[in-house]
Amino acid sequence: MWLWYNWRSAIVLSSELVVLDEEHWDGWKDIDAIAKRIKILQQGMLTPEANHLAGRFGDTIILQDGHEDLPSFDWPQPPKEALSCLDQGMMRLGQQQLMETATNPDYRLEHLVNSCDELRETTLIHEARIIEWLSMMYPQANLGRDRVGLIRSLARSEQVTELANKWSVNAPDYEEVHKEWKVMKKLAEITNMSYKQLDATEHQIRLVSESYMPSLSLLLGPILAARMCVAAHSRARLARLPAGTIQILGAEQAFFEHLKHGSAPPKHGHLFMHPWVGKSPRWVRGKIARMLAGKVCLAVRSDHFGGQIWDEKHVQEIKSKVESLIKNHPRPPKR
Amino acid sequence: MWLWYNWRSAIVLSSELVVLDEEHWDGWKDIDAIAKRIKILQQGMLTPEANHLAGRFGDTIILQDGHEDLPSFDWPQPPKEALSCLDQGMMRLGQQQLMETATNPDYRLEHLVNSCDELRETTLIHEARIIEWLSMMYPQANLGRDRVGLIRSLARSEQVTELANKWSVNAPDYEEVHKEWKVMKKLAEITNMSYKQLDATEHQIRLVSESYMPSLSLLLGPILAARMCVAAHSRARLARLPAGTIQILGAEQAFFEHLKHGSAPPKHGHLFMHPWVGKSPRWVRGKIARMLAGKVCLAVRSDHFGGQIWDEKHVQEIKSKVESLIKNHPRPPKR
Repeated sequence: MWLWYNWRSAIVLSSELVVLDEEHWDGWKDIDAIAKRIKILQQGMLTPEANHLAGRFGDTIILQDGHEDLPSFDWPQPPKEALSCLDQGMMRLGQQQLMETATNPDYRLEHLVNSCDELRETTLIHEARIIEWLSMMYPQANLGRDRVGLIRSLARSEQVTELANKWSVNAPDYEEVHKEWKVMKKLAEITNMSYKQLDATEHQIRLVSESYMPSLSLLLGPILAARMCVAAHSRARLARLPAGTIQILGAEQAFFEHLKHGSAPPKHGHLFMHPWVGKSPRWVRGKIARMLAGKVCLAVRSDHFGGQIWDEKHVQEIKSKVESLIKNHPRPPKR
Repeated sequence: MWLWYNWRSAIVLSSELVVLDEEHWDGWKDIDAIAKRIKILQQGMLTPEANHLAGRFGDTIILQDGHEDLPSFDWPQPPKEALSCLDQGMMRLGQQQLMETATNPDYRLEHLVNSCDELRETTLIHEARIIEWLSMMYPQANLGRDRVGLIRSLARSEQVTELANKWSVNAPDYEEVHKEWKVMKKLAEITNMSYKQLDATEHQIRLVSESYMPSLSLLLGPILAARMCVAAHSRARLARLPAGTIQILGAEQAFFEHLKHGSAPPKHGHLFMHPWVGKSPRWVRGKIARMLAGKVCLAVRSDHFGGQIWDEKHVQEIKSKVESLIKNHPRPPKR
């Protein structure tokens, strides 16, 4: 006994190829409803009609239209008009699935985090250029160490002499100097905007991270949580990774070096950015990273599979574990 | 017989250590004049006093104060007051020499050309990010190939729906979408500013190049001329390089590969950017580059050593040489 079904109909066929029962859906003028049904078929689930018949006939082989195990039979085809609606439904579904990528927090985080990294890279490039350029234009000035402050004050000044007066040094004086200074100043403006853009991007990462991975964000901070998620390619995948992989996420290169040339395996990847790891004594970092990776595992699973959202208590517990790890290893191990 | 001199005095001493003549300068209250004299000493030239005495006494050994070949003698020291002026003069000279770096066109070009290259690099990075981001936000849109145009229209739009309407596609719709879209739009604004900055920087390069290397700018175009100058580290050095080095300037890596591993030597470096080289048939490019490098040599020497400034006639002559080279080699050589 077979239960055959497609997006519109469901039929129960006896082993003697007799139609025992059939149901047809007539709502096919609703394109959205068709799209929903196509998705049901794509996911291998049952349409309401098939579901209904399957409940009534217990012991059937349930197969979608077109399956090779079905006996050859003149299955009922939908009317021509319905077929054109089916086409539209397929289109609609494609569009919907496309739009899902636009709202997928995994993709959104990926763009935000990568954009942040790129901005950091490009601002550093321009920053270095401007500082060098400034030290050429005002060779007598003591530029100090506050690069960001320097670039801000350049971006805000209007005249080549303005900074010279501020620093009580001579302004360069040659034909066209002002035009050239303007080029440098504009670059400082762009760099200054990039600083702000960096802040705005990080702010947005925080927003997405805290709503998408509340527990992990609480544990690692939203920025690091986002970075872990992007490194794993999605929250779903991060939630399925073993703790050992999470521990070295972001240190893939060092890990492959380890496999290839037998160098020491990495003790931590992105997790190093967490102050518990990065600011602990060198010889405890690996232990803390391993422990923390296990907790990351729990937190992200709780986020992904809809578990209880963590609160401060969880984090405090882990923090005290970190502290006891540090206390129990006051000295570097002897070699 | 010796002629001893320092910044203030000059003395002619006989071999019996008798002062035959002496001259002293009393203008030492003028700090700028002192600075000028210190520079004269630094360059190993004669002060006016020394020059005067040297003209009168033909056959003397002329040595600056402090030289080890001088006999020990109680050389006249300047008055104390003059010594403090000397200190000030040294300071003044140091400052002046510092300020010279600020106006040195070699350094100025270096910053402009490098800044251009860096801007090109960073805009490409942000451009690629924005295009990917756009294709995530508007998955149904056909973004086409005009990346710069896309980024301009993003930078100019105000709402996430504005572009969606323009492209007749759906706008993404989720909480916070507008904030996230704003982050992307701001990045597009920065990138758009970087395009303009690139133009402004190139414009300034043109200005400097055309006044600093008029002949070379006429021959190669001001941008390529600037690049050659920066690659050689200064106009002075470019003017002293042999044509063979000029030909491969900018292809250093390929050249060292050639020396180390015996790969084919590079036929052209930055010169490839010139349409005469880059747009000629592959098998004539090397010949044209060699000929052109020789002409670059002449042009930059004319610029650096104050020769006649080239005009269109020079360039036309070279152009006809290029054309005859192409005409004489219509086919690739047989191997």
